[in-house]
Amino acid sequence: MNYPGGIKASRNHITIYKNRGMTLEEDLNITNQFYQEEDIAYIYKKPTPIQITKVDYPSRKEAVIKEAYFKEPSTTDYNGIYRGYYIDFEAKETRNHTSFPLSNIHPHQIEHLEHVLRHGGICFLIVRFTTQNETYLLTGKDFFDFLKHSTRKSIPYTYFLEKGYPIPFEYHPRLPYLKAVDEMIGGSYEN
Amino acid sequence: MNYPGGIKASRNHITIYKNRGMTLEEDLNITNQFYQEEDIAYIYKKPTPIQITKVDYPSRKEAVIKEAYFKEPSTTDYNGIYRGYYIDFEAKETRNHTSFPLSNIHPHQIEHLEHVLRHGGICFLIVRFTTQNETYLLTGKDFFDFLKHSTRKSIPYTYFLEKGYPIPFEYHPRLPYLKAVDEMIGGSYEN
Repeated sequence: MNYPGGIKASRNHITIYKNRGMTLEEDLNITNQFYQEEDIAYIYKKPTPIQITKVDYPSRKEAVIKEAYFKEPSTTDYNGIYRGYYIDFEAKETRNHTSFPLSNIHPHQIEHLEHVLRHGGICFLIVRFTTQNETYLLTGKDFFDFLKHSTRKSIPYTYFLEKGYPIPFEYHPRLPYLKAVDEMIGGSYEN
Repeated sequence: MNYPGGIKASRNHITIYKNRGMTLEEDLNITNQFYQEEDIAYIYKKPTPIQITKVDYPSRKEAVIKEAYFKEPSTTDYNGIYRGYYIDFEAKETRNHTSFPLSNIHPHQIEHLEHVLRHGGICFLIVRFTTQNETYLLTGKDFFDFLKHSTRKSIPYTYFLEKGYPIPFEYHPRLPYLKAVDEMIGGSYEN
């Protein structure tokens, strides 16, 4: 069981890991909240796709889902709008310190990213290597370049060093990933 | 219980209403599928937001949700990308033939649409008056103009006649709502 703020409960005791850091999802949530409050961008997490198979109605107004299953995601977790651009990305952590396993990204999500790119949106991956505690933004273009030219089942860490934008930890916002998006929009980015 | 294709089951029998038409959601699903297959736009329905409270793990790979609740939606149902623009809309049917009750749109969804407009996206409502069997697209601008200048709890049907874009039923696609979006982008549309 993971609690926010680095508190971890095991069977009989609670330990607080100081400076242990938050999960990538928590970091992105507070980052997106900051971007929204400062009116910089509007980027949000989509609901988790669920297949509902049984619903009870104990009263007219109330519905309780009694059986449901997690569906394989057909889109990415995050999307929104920044400087008029459609923004779309998937965020993943890996404990693997030499590469990012492509099994983390479902085939439907890859199709989704292709659609977004083709219609003029901005898409990317945000990948955290938890062992190194380093976070990278990899543009959709560089991601698809890799898929096109490689048969490997994982993207090497060195590819992120070479092609990715490192995203530092800061205070406000926690993960300033839109700086990388600014570079994508401003200069060398090609769709 | 509603089945697709106009089949309706009541307590003891099943009746088929010929030419009864599909729900707005069904019409939009096949329309968006057409737009995607023809590579015209990439617009999709977001998952329904669910609050999960109990999950069973009968095996390591399998998870069964045993208790969950429908959450009040904080965003709209549909979004996507068209001609490089961020597209966002909510779609609703009403049986009321004189007005569209604003209770159909949650306060969080109105905030969501405001964010989208402010950051340069294109947003609108698609409203079907089922009694008349007429469907209208109302631009975000005209929707917010109404909210700003009226204290009414519903938008009159006549407002849709005056400001909305009527969306005809066609074959391919079923509900060609992007024609109205073309007019919004091309000419008189102002954010």
